[in-house]
Amino acid sequence: MRRLLFWSAVILFLRASVGFAQQSGQSTQQNFLQVARQLREEGLRHGQAFALLRELTALGPRVAGSPQAAAAVEWMRQKMVDLGLENVHLEPVTVQRWQRGDVEEARAFSPKTGGGITLRVCALGGSVATPPDGLAAPVIEVRSFDELHRLGDRVRGKIVFLNHPMNPVYLNTFRAYGEAARYRTQGAVEAAKMGAVAVVVRSLTLHQDDVPHTGVMFYSPNVPKIPAAALGILSAERLSRMIRLNPDTRLFLRLNCRTLSPVPSANVVGDLRGTGKPQEIVLLGGHLDSWDLGVGAHDDGAGCIHALEAVRLLKALHLRPRRTIRVTLFMNEEFGRSGGRDYAVSPLRNGEKHIAAIESDRGGFLPLGFGISADSLQFARYQRWLPVLREAAGILWLRRGGGGSDVAPLRSTGTVLIGLVPDSQRYFDVHHSANDVLAAVHPRELELGAIAMSMLAYLLAEDSGAP
Amino acid sequence: MRRLLFWSAVILFLRASVGFAQQSGQSTQQNFLQVARQLREEGLRHGQAFALLRELTALGPRVAGSPQAAAAVEWMRQKMVDLGLENVHLEPVTVQRWQRGDVEEARAFSPKTGGGITLRVCALGGSVATPPDGLAAPVIEVRSFDELHRLGDRVRGKIVFLNHPMNPVYLNTFRAYGEAARYRTQGAVEAAKMGAVAVVVRSLTLHQDDVPHTGVMFYSPNVPKIPAAALGILSAERLSRMIRLNPDTRLFLRLNCRTLSPVPSANVVGDLRGTGKPQEIVLLGGHLDSWDLGVGAHDDGAGCIHALEAVRLLKALHLRPRRTIRVTLFMNEEFGRSGGRDYAVSPLRNGEKHIAAIESDRGGFLPLGFGISADSLQFARYQRWLPVLREAAGILWLRRGGGGSDVAPLRSTGTVLIGLVPDSQRYFDVHHSANDVLAAVHPRELELGAIAMSMLAYLLAEDSGAP
Repeated sequence: MRRLLFWSAVILFLRASVGFAQQSGQSTQQNFLQVARQLREEGLRHGQAFALLRELTALGPRVAGSPQAAAAVEWMRQKMVDLGLENVHLEPVTVQRWQRGDVEEARAFSPKTGGGITLRVCALGGSVATPPDGLAAPVIEVRSFDELHRLGDRVRGKIVFLNHPMNPVYLNTFRAYGEAARYRTQGAVEAAKMGAVAVVVRSLTLHQDDVPHTGVMFYSPNVPKIPAAALGILSAERLSRMIRLNPDTRLFLRLNCRTLSPVPSANVVGDLRGTGKPQEIVLLGGHLDSWDLGVGAHDDGAGCIHALEAVRLLKALHLRPRRTIRVTLFMNEEFGRSGGRDYAVSPLRNGEKHIAAIESDRGGFLPLGFGISADSLQFARYQRWLPVLREAAGILWLRRGGGGSDVAPLRSTGTVLIGLVPDSQRYFDVHHSANDVLAAVHPRELELGAIAMSMLAYLLAEDSGAP
Repeated sequence: MRRLLFWSAVILFLRASVGFAQQSGQSTQQNFLQVARQLREEGLRHGQAFALLRELTALGPRVAGSPQAAAAVEWMRQKMVDLGLENVHLEPVTVQRWQRGDVEEARAFSPKTGGGITLRVCALGGSVATPPDGLAAPVIEVRSFDELHRLGDRVRGKIVFLNHPMNPVYLNTFRAYGEAARYRTQGAVEAAKMGAVAVVVRSLTLHQDDVPHTGVMFYSPNVPKIPAAALGILSAERLSRMIRLNPDTRLFLRLNCRTLSPVPSANVVGDLRGTGKPQEIVLLGGHLDSWDLGVGAHDDGAGCIHALEAVRLLKALHLRPRRTIRVTLFMNEEFGRSGGRDYAVSPLRNGEKHIAAIESDRGGFLPLGFGISADSLQFARYQRWLPVLREAAGILWLRRGGGGSDVAPLRSTGTVLIGLVPDSQRYFDVHHSANDVLAAVHPRELELGAIAMSMLAYLLAEDSGAP
């Protein structure tokens, strides 16, 4: 009987404890839901994201090392100060420089028929120039590196046309980009190894227009550097048709881009200092530099504004969580990723502990989910937050795996890396091209991304996903 | 011992049965996943949705009763024939006609200061005209009907300006539309009851531009019919500011719209006849008519093309399910909903059993989910299909409640009503306005909607959600 009483007591005690814990968990969840609603209300009613992006993009394209990139650094620093962030400072980054010239010409012609067509083209980032008067050579079309390699000696002295289309059947267009990007990045090396004199690639886009898309390309130490350019999709298809009709088609290419000496630039950093554990940091980031053809409204102006607006929303609601929320806008993601690398190894990191780093670098479209590089147990804890994130910004899923190229170097310090994942259907319409302008960004879609970032940052800084 | 053996046998039998059922269920699910992948591949690689929408919108605005609407009926009938649908026919619908005039003018002016501003305005659908030379009266601004009613006698002889903004804080913009639409539909009646001579309403949009948005408005039998028009958002805000500065502000309004006699028109119907139960029908629909200011690319050209392309995809894959999949394009949703009503009660429905009706009338944006008006048990069965719908078109959720105004009259026959739910952030930027043009539609987003409709129609026609 005593034993029965004892165990009854134990059971009652356990039940009470569980009940208490549940209640407390529930009330925290209730508080978070309350915050979610307030963030959404503030963002969708008084949001500044689009107005901020208008200011940022008005500075022009923000190619790393350019005067416009320097202006963007100073603009962002001032915004952080005006917003009342603490510890606002620049951290030095050395950036490689490459400059598009004022001459970008491509023309296909058939010596036999005398006919020719002008093609829309842009140099790839990092390409060497052609000779000043351009170069002309027979052009040979392939769809893949396998096909290229099978051609053997027939490539020598020719211009290789890598006409590999992005695969349209994936729901996630980044997957198609991931599969096709090596033709842009490695095309010059693979073609030059076989004796080609230049390479032109089909632009990496799923949109049927003729706007060429640039992006970084690489050379290899022991392989000749040949000019590399991208054709608009319609130009690529016209060239392909012409080659089918006239196998003797030659391509004329003229580019006067050039590589300049490295210059100093900066990452921009500002904190919303934590009340309890200020040395523990939840980082929000994007990259401040862009390509030169548009004004980087989506890539990655949107990401920078997501991070800035996320903290503005918290400030507007007077929310200051236990851990520090830091905005870091990285320099030079597009042409060497030096900003992310330099940030991670800076001596300023001593004494700081980065709990999590959320990057937005997939455009300012409707936010759908977050990709989270955490272990199973941690991830399971984050899953509890899904209803809160849904309430704040319509976030529909959390999945394992994610981050971004700027925050990737923090992985070795045990930081949980997180990437905001907006809908990707329209991203490659604008990516690295003249289409990447403010008009391609929708104010509500952009703001919802900021609200999502804001909510997740608050959860991480207040709760960190501990059970 | 015998008993033990008996029960062991029973248990073994039951286990075997369950195993078999599970296996068979799994293999069906596998087949559906296979179909999902094929539909996505066909749609995203060879999709026709955008090309079809280009043709349809090139006919011009499809106001019910207009020559362009008649052209759209014939275009759609021919497309169905060319596609090889069976039982292609028109079903008669009588449509009310209202015609916008060539004069739509609004100007606010202050007799005291002599200053004035021109406002962007459009007549609401169904409005009477102003006198031929227009009318001018003091304008009085309210934000709600409550505010209007409190004004009492002060409304007499004035023009009421209903400046009720859509609530921006909802994630689902249709909710904000639902709350604000009564100011457009009932504004003239409420204002006229109090002696107003005209009403102008703030356009129902969340987009910051000055493009006015039309839409249907109603009169009441015993209330004077006064002219009703919508102001662009920026015009509404300028007018509001002017009234604050000059309470004596008067508004001049001139509209020469008119109501014409009813004419016959038609719903367009075509079947992919079922192999096993052809009399059981899964209907896919949208409405063929549009408002007159744009070309109804999203509203509801997209919905019509979703339905047509959904069946084209099934035909392209030689998929012919057990039940009949029917495309019904309804006439006159916008100005009386007569097409949906007439379809439901037509004698042609005798002997037909409509299992489900899926309507797409929320634009051609990224499809996110389906709203399903089914009972709990049925709905739980449909939930099994979510992974298949996700695989086909990225559908992220199914929720209870949904349908559309054209299929709503089928509810009384026990039909499960379903609505495709695309992302709503951009819908009211274009809805019922000159912004609703082809360029506002994204080819991949549109195609994904068609793929989603196609997959769900196939599931319903092959499996119907039975356990």
